Amino acid sequence: MRVRGKHYKTVWMNARSVFLIDQTLLPFRFKIVRAATHRDTCEAIRAMTVRGAGAIGAAAAFAMAQAFAEAPPRGLEDYARKARQRIESTRPTAQNLFYAVKRVFDRAVRSRDPKKAAADEAASLARKDEEDCRRIGEIGNALIKDGASVGTHCNAGWLAFVDYGTALSPVYAAARGGKKIFVYVDETRPRGQGARLTAWELRNERIPHAIIPDNAAAYFFSKKKIDLVIVGADRIAANGDAANKIGTLEKAVCAKEFGVPFYVAAPTSTFDPGCRSGEEIPIEERSEDEVLYQSGPGPRGKEGRIRVASPGSRALNPAFDVTPAKFLTGILTEKGILRPSRENVAYLFRGKENEKTETGKTPAQV
Amino acid sequence: MRVRGKHYKTVWMNARSVFLIDQTLLPFRFKIVRAATHRDTCEAIRAMTVRGAGAIGAAAAFAMAQAFAEAPPRGLEDYARKARQRIESTRPTAQNLFYAVKRVFDRAVRSRDPKKAAADEAASLARKDEEDCRRIGEIGNALIKDGASVGTHCNAGWLAFVDYGTALSPVYAAARGGKKIFVYVDETRPRGQGARLTAWELRNERIPHAIIPDNAAAYFFSKKKIDLVIVGADRIAANGDAANKIGTLEKAVCAKEFGVPFYVAAPTSTFDPGCRSGEEIPIEERSEDEVLYQSGPGPRGKEGRIRVASPGSRALNPAFDVTPAKFLTGILTEKGILRPSRENVAYLFRGKENEKTETGKTPAQV
Repeated sequence: MRVRGKHYKTVWMNARSVFLIDQTLLPFRFKIVRAATHRDTCEAIRAMTVRGAGAIGAAAAFAMAQAFAEAPPRGLEDYARKARQRIESTRPTAQNLFYAVKRVFDRAVRSRDPKKAAADEAASLARKDEEDCRRIGEIGNALIKDGASVGTHCNAGWLAFVDYGTALSPVYAAARGGKKIFVYVDETRPRGQGARLTAWELRNERIPHAIIPDNAAAYFFSKKKIDLVIVGADRIAANGDAANKIGTLEKAVCAKEFGVPFYVAAPTSTFDPGCRSGEEIPIEERSEDEVLYQSGPGPRGKEGRIRVASPGSRALNPAFDVTPAKFLTGILTEKGILRPSRENVAYLFRGKENEKTETGKTPAQV
Repeated sequence: MRVRGKHYKTVWMNARSVFLIDQTLLPFRFKIVRAATHRDTCEAIRAMTVRGAGAIGAAAAFAMAQAFAEAPPRGLEDYARKARQRIESTRPTAQNLFYAVKRVFDRAVRSRDPKKAAADEAASLARKDEEDCRRIGEIGNALIKDGASVGTHCNAGWLAFVDYGTALSPVYAAARGGKKIFVYVDETRPRGQGARLTAWELRNERIPHAIIPDNAAAYFFSKKKIDLVIVGADRIAANGDAANKIGTLEKAVCAKEFGVPFYVAAPTSTFDPGCRSGEEIPIEERSEDEVLYQSGPGPRGKEGRIRVASPGSRALNPAFDVTPAKFLTGILTEKGILRPSRENVAYLFRGKENEKTETGKTPAQV
């Protein structure tokens, strides 16, 4: 992804150091942080210098590789085991983190050259994340006509993964392929990931866009201004119900009402075969202060925090909602476009990847 | 309406002075402004010290009465005519303002005692606004069960009228009648009238409530947490389509999907018989800065203004949307509950007020 014309990934490793875009400073400041040791990388994950499923997974894999590189020849496995615990304690609910750390650890301890094996496996995991997202972009690009307007919610872009992103990957592919497109960016209250991160990504890619209040999406649907919507997902149940940022359900219901195609984009690693339907997905309730206060730079660039609600009133702040599969036109994965019916999603977990895509082609052909 | 236990109206007249709650300072400061002359009242309308259809209409009527009171015995009508122009130029799109000023002016110039006639007519208009809202509260109260949760969007409360409000009037009636209720208050980005004004009103009336991000309404509908929604309207077409604050359409579509009754509350003066359907209602596009920046008090109470969006990105800010009649369970008016079908709304303009209410009773019985 480009920043001021230069190509960057969200997180990468060079020799023994991990480099990360500091997402706590975006969109107002762009800074690369160097984490020299696995402890530094742990701290970066904990402090949310890096955020987003794919990006956290890659950072955790790199941290595990750093630990093997740092470990003394005697007691290597012991050192790595303690490091693993440290990495796993940074963001205890991030599924990708556990998966990535386990992969790197297991491969390293079975290898004759654990340091090299760990580095190779971490690099391979990061490449896989990037490749899946790139492929989602190719597949989704086919849905975007020249001159189209695309709606999106929250940030499922490059910053949440190693590169490309999920929901925005088709947008980037379309723009790079020379299509003229326009993006309607939901502000995404309360934390404003749309107004802050998605808008920042699009500006860096020079893609025309406008931020809209979350309240305005149905208005633009009703005026036929938005041709299709693509959003990300935090977790997809076996029946195709998708958990994503609060407000996704509202947009999906309205999109269906006004005949606007609505897609979820996510790598197949986001599917949770153990979760039968969206009703089983727990919804995180976050601090009410995210609703009652807002932060950002004031007139002279100095960070300010203001109250945006009546004093003494309280707020409710569910962070996610679940969109039932019936509202989804399709799910864009690296293996093809899925119709979110029970059979079609469940097949992913039976190793039958070559069946039942939307078009009847095998996923690799889509 | 109560503020710190004391009863207030939004705007009232005493002798030759008009008194107004300064709404530019709410919810962070409560202050009554005195407008000693019709010019002072004009300035208060222009500066949005007073806002909301009913409240602006009453303030304009009072300003017209002030002008007659101030006028010299010779040249009284000339003075009043100039004053009328001044009042009408304050908020050129406010329908209620023109209606109110015309009523007061016409009655005064036809009277033998124009000063008294103007004061009487202004007082009568303000009383009518208050009485209509009180009646909407009575009628709407019948829809609210003890223990119910009510959703609302924006502020169609006491502050937008002389007293009671429209959407909130049934809520106040229910609470005063001893029902235990809870209100889900949509934040209402970009200007935050829900988080700022509706929450402030409810707190003053000691009604339990929570502010929710606009994105969360469908989530709470899907969880069966909201029993019914009541919102206001800025203009209602002859077919029942209702223009209201941006986001109303989104809530109405989602409410219907999840089986939550959705009501618009408005006095019959909000109906526009010249407007056949919502498609004819022009939508005001407001400054993008309302989306890109936020204002409010900082940690030491000092007013701050911060940027809440990525630098360089632009925004779109439609202020209203139109909810098609088919999404409305009913329209609460001072004459009864209307089913928003063409016949039923149009009858209001044929002087057949005693026909066709939802229940089959005449409106006065509902």
